[in-house]
Amino acid sequence: MSYRPPLEDVRFLLGDVLDFDGRVTGLPGQAESTLDAVLDVLAEAGTFCANELAPLNLPGDGAGATLGPDGVSTPAGFREAWRTLVAGGWPGLTCDPEYGGSGLPHTTQVVFEEFLCATNLSFATYLTLRHGAYHALRLHGSAEQRDRLLPLLASGRVAGTMCLTEAHAGTDLGLIRTRADPDEAGGYRVSGTKVFITAGDHDLTENIVHLVLARLPGAPSGTKGISLLIVPKIAADGKRNGVTCTSLEHKMGIRASATCVLTFEDAWGELVGEPHGGMRAMFTMMNAARLSVGIHGLGLADGAYQRAVRYARVRLQGRALGGAARPDLEADPIIVHPDVRRALLRVRSQVEAGRALALWTAIELDVAHRHDDPVVRAAADDLVALMTPILKAGLTELGWEATSTALGVFGGAGYIRETGIEQYVRDARIAPIYEGTNGIQALDLVGRKLPEGAGRLLRRFFHPADAWLERQRGNPTLAEFVDPTTRAIDTLRATTLWLGERGASDREEAGAAATDYLRLFFLTASCYMWARMAAAALDPQATCTPAFREAKLASGRFYIARVLPEAGALAREITAGKASVMGFPEAAF
Amino acid sequence: MSYRPPLEDVRFLLGDVLDFDGRVTGLPGQAESTLDAVLDVLAEAGTFCANELAPLNLPGDGAGATLGPDGVSTPAGFREAWRTLVAGGWPGLTCDPEYGGSGLPHTTQVVFEEFLCATNLSFATYLTLRHGAYHALRLHGSAEQRDRLLPLLASGRVAGTMCLTEAHAGTDLGLIRTRADPDEAGGYRVSGTKVFITAGDHDLTENIVHLVLARLPGAPSGTKGISLLIVPKIAADGKRNGVTCTSLEHKMGIRASATCVLTFEDAWGELVGEPHGGMRAMFTMMNAARLSVGIHGLGLADGAYQRAVRYARVRLQGRALGGAARPDLEADPIIVHPDVRRALLRVRSQVEAGRALALWTAIELDVAHRHDDPVVRAAADDLVALMTPILKAGLTELGWEATSTALGVFGGAGYIRETGIEQYVRDARIAPIYEGTNGIQALDLVGRKLPEGAGRLLRRFFHPADAWLERQRGNPTLAEFVDPTTRAIDTLRATTLWLGERGASDREEAGAAATDYLRLFFLTASCYMWARMAAAALDPQATCTPAFREAKLASGRFYIARVLPEAGALAREITAGKASVMGFPEAAF
Repeated sequence: MSYRPPLEDVRFLLGDVLDFDGRVTGLPGQAESTLDAVLDVLAEAGTFCANELAPLNLPGDGAGATLGPDGVSTPAGFREAWRTLVAGGWPGLTCDPEYGGSGLPHTTQVVFEEFLCATNLSFATYLTLRHGAYHALRLHGSAEQRDRLLPLLASGRVAGTMCLTEAHAGTDLGLIRTRADPDEAGGYRVSGTKVFITAGDHDLTENIVHLVLARLPGAPSGTKGISLLIVPKIAADGKRNGVTCTSLEHKMGIRASATCVLTFEDAWGELVGEPHGGMRAMFTMMNAARLSVGIHGLGLADGAYQRAVRYARVRLQGRALGGAARPDLEADPIIVHPDVRRALLRVRSQVEAGRALALWTAIELDVAHRHDDPVVRAAADDLVALMTPILKAGLTELGWEATSTALGVFGGAGYIRETGIEQYVRDARIAPIYEGTNGIQALDLVGRKLPEGAGRLLRRFFHPADAWLERQRGNPTLAEFVDPTTRAIDTLRATTLWLGERGASDREEAGAAATDYLRLFFLTASCYMWARMAAAALDPQATCTPAFREAKLASGRFYIARVLPEAGALAREITAGKASVMGFPEAAF
Repeated sequence: MSYRPPLEDVRFLLGDVLDFDGRVTGLPGQAESTLDAVLDVLAEAGTFCANELAPLNLPGDGAGATLGPDGVSTPAGFREAWRTLVAGGWPGLTCDPEYGGSGLPHTTQVVFEEFLCATNLSFATYLTLRHGAYHALRLHGSAEQRDRLLPLLASGRVAGTMCLTEAHAGTDLGLIRTRADPDEAGGYRVSGTKVFITAGDHDLTENIVHLVLARLPGAPSGTKGISLLIVPKIAADGKRNGVTCTSLEHKMGIRASATCVLTFEDAWGELVGEPHGGMRAMFTMMNAARLSVGIHGLGLADGAYQRAVRYARVRLQGRALGGAARPDLEADPIIVHPDVRRALLRVRSQVEAGRALALWTAIELDVAHRHDDPVVRAAADDLVALMTPILKAGLTELGWEATSTALGVFGGAGYIRETGIEQYVRDARIAPIYEGTNGIQALDLVGRKLPEGAGRLLRRFFHPADAWLERQRGNPTLAEFVDPTTRAIDTLRATTLWLGERGASDREEAGAAATDYLRLFFLTASCYMWARMAAAALDPQATCTPAFREAKLASGRFYIARVLPEAGALAREITAGKASVMGFPEAAF
């Protein structure tokens, strides 16, 4: 059961690779957020997740969230764990001190969420949805709303939700029908039915703030007529508001996370921001949430990897191909087998690169939010905007691949529920879907992020990468990383140019390429991270241990040799164009 | 719910591509097995699966198999469906007429099993395990055992199991501890505990014949000391024998299939074949079972694909990128979107090639079993031996990829149990594990099948493929298929040579390459099938309709453009060698 938070890797990434102290410490409000200070907090967070949340994960899956006459109950132990969480101040980790938070950089939250998701994704959903509501209200709420609600959300006394989806309106939010009619007192009466509402009801907090997309009377059709409203579960007078969880979904996974049908019947609500300005506010929330969902995939991948490694060390089957490794035992542990090592390294080398990408982006997010130079802020914001769909889709696909691979290491035992690993696979399958399916992420990348500012966002990636690679060119010990990375980036650039030319005049070309292009970008950016990590590990100034350095370089070599070649295949698939995708007769499917 | 058995594709493959009438009809005992006759039977089989089994699939998953004081009960409806199955003579479809079977070629069974697995994999396991027991006893049982037991198995009145695995002995059967001690009457007393026994107990039949691997007193250690015994659930005197299902596994999927812990306590048994000859007999059974498990993957893939297509036609979200396709509706069906089409075609083009590979191999299996020329039989047997691990692993990986992709087409609805598609994903995860994990299949391919007879098995694939491609070289209309196939086969050949040289002297090299090499072979053989299918579709003699021809060619073009490029990446990953796999320090995982 024991989960080992990857603190050594986080220290290496933030300290030796990504210059956390240079980029984040000293930003306005972050004078005390040194690497050491942040790591101390994260060590405590890791202990909390390993000790309090991991043991609740499998029982929570078995019990599931349940709906009774008084609403939704979470599984045994969740309420106690939430109380511990609140008592430790964890919900406010990165919330503003003026609202009672600890004010740490967002990077801290990203690492914390990896630990949460590695140990108990269902539990994590209650916390992260609340976090999304905090940020949406912080950016779009009025001063009065902020003062009234943010302290409650920051403390974890009140939770939040995002009520977007309706049965007929998932990806296509322009179809939303929920209505909000003004009442006499300046408020609104909200009516409609929302589905797939994560953490839509539960017994963890005294109240829940629902952020609801709805139409005001006379609103334009489509996404331009959507407004954002706050609808509390318990109204200001202490009575139940007109919002009810009328059904709980029976899901493949994250069964302890309550996925609700919420029925709004004349529920009292208040407007956030301007009428018909709801989509903009929701997008703010979705972008933060998308990075967070990427971390779901990363956390599950590492949690599953750690379990698979532990099993591979103790499961005795067969003999090493080069002769018995443990002649004292009746068979060798399966970790001696090349195919088992290959499977584990495929996960490990992608997890390490994925974590590097996530923390790189997280640091830029902190810069984008806090730097006092607007030019620096804008540059960082561009990179975050570019990387958000890549991380959401890339890391959640990794979560799916990694958990299934880990299950495979367990063989038949992996298929048994009590072993616990198949829960990781089931939990992992939602992350590619929610917060915008990965197909939508890919369309966001090729349809919005690529063309934006005539490629301005792309340059935020390519220019620093090119410059960094150029600086390493003379270093022979790094050539095994730098040369393939340079070729990979050239391939990505050529494919991007091809797509820019074709996709600009033919949106179907962009659509037919989107998913493969996003994966190509993810693999290439991961490779760039590997080159950066290898350089840092070989730097005599690095603080990592020799054993850590050796493992890091070996994992990177595996990535270059056994994962990166997929990028070449993707480039060929993309540049084959849309003909074979659109040429198939629709009636024949 | 409606499942459409792919009869048109089966007719095309058997009739226009694979020359069923020339290869199978007219084999000894098969004078009446014409293509038309077989297709008539298969049409009926498809109707049975669609009407009787498909409706039981989702409820069966919810109820699961249950263990009570009298043993295991199958979910509601399973017993009635089994009675219908028996009344229709389906269990004996390919069993010998002398034992009451219909004596149809094995190819028929392969198609039937695809339909079974596409509609209800849990139900199918009860039937296919019985089928495996029939064949093991037919080949290794004494005349008396055959006469006594085969009619019962052929009729479906009695079921069968394969009792191999013990808790500490899965892949490594040499570790088996179950004992069989001779009694005074020429029988044996079997004691031990077997785990993960599929269809190990149930209420569908009046008796169950367990085929059990055990050690006789004084047996040599390892796999050379393992014997095969028959242990009936109900003994000859009509009383319960000493074999009990002591526990049912709680599994990720195939929940209506009883996966049992079977405890043998002084259970009466009889020896099959020679003492210590159990592994050979079990391998016979496993090879047939491995092809069958490959079909699990194929059936699930097509069943899931069909559901995803139906949903994509009715789910309205967003607008076609080139402008509204259905301006009369509030949104377009999602099948207009390039990324949805890409996802569907990735599955479809691999399913069609996989079905072709499976039927090609099935026909060769019939030839291997029945042809009167031993040289022809041996050649066919070689191809079957080569293709068995490739199909088992390749098709079960396809089942996993395809079901997950189909779930993705459903978006959030796919994650909900009542939608039914997530069951396909859960059901699909076992097939890469049981009957020898896919890692073991890959080792079988590179460690046994490749070196056998100095590459004799390989030549059964390469020589006919080369000759066929050579004959098509002058045909310009086929060049779009023949040229990439020729290049793919050249890549496979070069990689095989590399592996043959390296792997012969270093088993770790073979082990590090195995899984990627198997996938490379599967993709390349699939491509060869695409070239064959394209040639058949373009043949003026072909019996398929113009619409079928158009769809077939379009699907093949997608395969070449958007799936095949992966083969090049695999070749590079393989020839990168073992260094990065074995170079990672074991303690650092």
